[in-house]
Amino acid sequence: MYAITVSEPGGADKITWAQVPTPEPGPGEVLVRTQAVGVNRGDVLQRQGHYPPPAGATEVMGLEGLGIIAELGEGVGDHEVGEQVLALLAGGAYAEYFVASAEHLLPVPAGVDPVKAAGLVEVAATVVSNFDRVGLGAGETVLIHGGAGGVGGFAIQYAKALGARVLTTASRRKGPYCRRLGADKVIDYAGDWEPAVMVATADRGVDVILDIIGARYLEANVRCLATEGRMVTIGLQKGVKGTLNLAVLLNKRGTITATSLRGRPADQKAAICRRVEQVVWPLLTDGTIRPGNQTRIPLREAARAHELLESGENTGKIILVADPPR
Amino acid sequence: MYAITVSEPGGADKITWAQVPTPEPGPGEVLVRTQAVGVNRGDVLQRQGHYPPPAGATEVMGLEGLGIIAELGEGVGDHEVGEQVLALLAGGAYAEYFVASAEHLLPVPAGVDPVKAAGLVEVAATVVSNFDRVGLGAGETVLIHGGAGGVGGFAIQYAKALGARVLTTASRRKGPYCRRLGADKVIDYAGDWEPAVMVATADRGVDVILDIIGARYLEANVRCLATEGRMVTIGLQKGVKGTLNLAVLLNKRGTITATSLRGRPADQKAAICRRVEQVVWPLLTDGTIRPGNQTRIPLREAARAHELLESGENTGKIILVADPPR
Repeated sequence: MYAITVSEPGGADKITWAQVPTPEPGPGEVLVRTQAVGVNRGDVLQRQGHYPPPAGATEVMGLEGLGIIAELGEGVGDHEVGEQVLALLAGGAYAEYFVASAEHLLPVPAGVDPVKAAGLVEVAATVVSNFDRVGLGAGETVLIHGGAGGVGGFAIQYAKALGARVLTTASRRKGPYCRRLGADKVIDYAGDWEPAVMVATADRGVDVILDIIGARYLEANVRCLATEGRMVTIGLQKGVKGTLNLAVLLNKRGTITATSLRGRPADQKAAICRRVEQVVWPLLTDGTIRPGNQTRIPLREAARAHELLESGENTGKIILVADPPR
Repeated sequence: MYAITVSEPGGADKITWAQVPTPEPGPGEVLVRTQAVGVNRGDVLQRQGHYPPPAGATEVMGLEGLGIIAELGEGVGDHEVGEQVLALLAGGAYAEYFVASAEHLLPVPAGVDPVKAAGLVEVAATVVSNFDRVGLGAGETVLIHGGAGGVGGFAIQYAKALGARVLTTASRRKGPYCRRLGADKVIDYAGDWEPAVMVATADRGVDVILDIIGARYLEANVRCLATEGRMVTIGLQKGVKGTLNLAVLLNKRGTITATSLRGRPADQKAAICRRVEQVVWPLLTDGTIRPGNQTRIPLREAARAHELLESGENTGKIILVADPPR
C-alpha cells in the first residue's frame, strides 16, 4: 500500500507518498481501508520529531480515521468486513490502510457526514475525557484557550451543552466563528486577556480552564482560577517550563492537571470511546453540536495540510481524504 | 479574660499575656473555657503578619482547642454547658475563652487523653481532607514531606491505616521517630531525596505526594510522580514561586493541587469535622493511630512554644496548656 512517510524529522517538505508494507491486524484488531483522516497538531509534532509514537505503534502519522473494515483480526466478533467505522488511533491513518483496536472503534453518528465525523474522534475524546477529569458542571464558567481550533471549537459547543458559561480566547479575526459556535465571550488573545477574563467574571475567575498553550499562560491562568478552580493542560504550544505561584494556587484551593490522549493505556481509551459514543454522538445527531469548519485536502497532499495547520490561518479542522480504492 | 496578644507583627518577643474582652457566642456558636491549644505553623505565620485571619475572625491566634462549654449561643441545641469538647477554629484558642461554631466541635475520642487530642484536630482535619482530595487508596505509594512534624507524623499513620506504602522525608536525627510511626522508608532531606524516592519505587514514582515545602521541591516533586500521580501542597515553608515543567506533568497525566484549611467555608469545615469524627477518632480509640510526640507548655508562655517550633528542634506537636480556672 501507499502511505505518507517522513524521510527525516523536519518540515512539511520531508513528507512523501511512498509504498510501505500493508499492516496486518493482530488479535482484537481490525484492518481498515482509509477513507478520511483528521489532521492533528500531534501529527505535526511527530513529523518534527518532537512527539515519537508510543512503543509498539506504527511510525505512520494519523490519530483518527474513517474507513471500511477490510479484515478482522483474531477474536473480533462484534464487527464485520465492509462495515464503515471511525477509529481512535496511536497512529497509522495517513495511509491507504490502517490497523485499529476493535475497542477503539466508533460508529459514524447517525445523520452525520462520515468524513466530517472523521475529524471529530480525537477532539471529542480529548474534550470529553478532560472535562470529565476536572468535573466541569452546569452553571460553571469555563475558559477555553484557542476556541477557533479543532479542540477549541468542539470544547465550546460541548461546554455549552453541559450548561456551562464559555469564555474563549481567539484571534480577532476568528472571534465571530467562536461566537457562532456558542461562546458567551470571545477575548482577543493578542491583547492582555487576563483582565478581560476577570472583568467577564466580575473578578470571581473561572471554574475550569482548558489550556493548549502551556508555559506562557501558566501564571495568568492560575491567577484567573476561581476558588476551587481546575485547569487542565492538553497542549504545550508556547513552552513547557513555566512559573507556578503555589501561594495563589493554595489560596484558591486550585488544581492543575495535564493529560495527553495518545499515551493512555488501551483500556482507558476504550472507556473514552464508549463515553464519546454514548454522550457526544447523540449531540451530533440532534444538532446540538455541529462539526464546525472543515477543510478537505487529498491524503497524498498531506504536506499541504501540515503547512496550512502550521500557518495558523486555518479555522477549525483539516481532513485528509483518501482516493477511492483503485 | 486574658489572652496571648501580639503587639506588632514580628518575632516571638512580640507576644504578651494581656487582658482583652471575653468574646460572646453568636447564633450557632458556643463559648468554651480553654484547657489546651495545639500550636500550628499557621500561628507563627500569623504572628509574623504573613497569615492574617479571615474576615470576621478574631485576631487572637489558635486554630484548635480543647475546653469546657461555658455558654451556648442562640439555636445550639445538641450541646450543653459543662461538656468537654474539641474545636476546629479560624483563631481564638490562645486565650482563657474562645468561641467556636457548634458545627466545628468534636467530642474527645474515647480512651484518648483529652490534652493529646487537642493537638490532633488540625492535623487530622488537614490530612483527612487532603488524602480524600487526592484519593489516596490502598496499595498506593505516598511521599510525605516532613514526616517528623505534627502533620507529617499523623499523615504517616493515617496513610498506613489506609493501606498505603509510606515514604517520608525527615532529618537524619528524626528518622527513627518516623519509622516508629510506621513509615516504610525514611529519606534524609538534607541529601538529594529525589533519587532515593525513585530507587525506593523502582523508578515508578509515587502515586501521591503530601507537600509542606512548596517552591523549592516543586520540580523534583513533579518528577517523582508516578503516572496519574497527584500532589497536594498544604504548606509553603520554602518559597511560593517554583518552576513547573508542564511536559513532565502531561506525560505522567499528573495533578497538582493546593489547599489550606482555615480559609474553607464553614460548611466544608463542618463536613471535614464529621469525617474526622467518623473515620479518625475510632482509629485513635483502637490504637491504630497514636497521638505521637507532644511537648506541653503553659499557655501564658506561648512565646517559648513559638521559639521551640521555629527552632526546628521539636519532634511532633507542641500543646499549650491553660491554667485551671481561677
